[in-house]
Amino acid sequence: MKVKASRQVESAPVEMEGAVDCTVRWLVSESDGAPNFAMRQFEVAPKGYTPKHHHPYEHEVFVLEGEGVVLEGEKQHPLAAGDVVFVAPDEVHQFRNTGSVPLKFLCLVPNAGQRPQHVSAECDK
Amino acid sequence: MKVKASRQVESAPVEMEGAVDCTVRWLVSESDGAPNFAMRQFEVAPKGYTPKHHHPYEHEVFVLEGEGVVLEGEKQHPLAAGDVVFVAPDEVHQFRNTGSVPLKFLCLVPNAGQRPQHVSAECDK
Repeated sequence: MKVKASRQVESAPVEMEGAVDCTVRWLVSESDGAPNFAMRQFEVAPKGYTPKHHHPYEHEVFVLEGEGVVLEGEKQHPLAAGDVVFVAPDEVHQFRNTGSVPLKFLCLVPNAGQRPQHVSAECDK
Repeated sequence: MKVKASRQVESAPVEMEGAVDCTVRWLVSESDGAPNFAMRQFEVAPKGYTPKHHHPYEHEVFVLEGEGVVLEGEKQHPLAAGDVVFVAPDEVHQFRNTGSVPLKFLCLVPNAGQRPQHVSAECDK
């Protein structure tokens, strides 16, 4: 068993093309012995966003703090704390902070999807 | 894509032997099309607890609200909002609310582990 405070897990910039003002903490991953999926916590600064992209694996997302939208292709869904998002494999998606405080969310991925291979440079800020 | 408010997802009592004053919401699961793992939200009332048990699959847990402990066998680890727990396959574990408000946490499991088969009746309140 491993127990840790998420705030003490190292935070690193998201360096993927198309990401603006995002950081990520890998809370649980293969390096902890997790056999199937990984739990990451993202923090997106006001006006920041994650890449608009798609990939052949799913996301399971839980919004912890802040306000934003998730894009499903061109369609926007508003997001607030306590909201849950399931992004199916191959769906085009993007998370954007539309509020004045950091948007924080958990985003879980299967281990097979931890190294994205299909990133679009599309970035319609 | 599916977007929903967690509070609007049906909450049901945890009827597993050894569970006291626990409810669960299945936020994302196979019924949503999730191919690999499920996100559940548990709420444990003050003095309540989950079963003390083990099973051949892991848990990935994020504490949302409240205070409690997680037992690793006989060892107790304190828990508060923002804490993360990785329970490895076959580890004996139990979550207990030691505070005065509901203990709320996310607990994710691989799809293969959604129907526990190894539940101990041990229940040392």
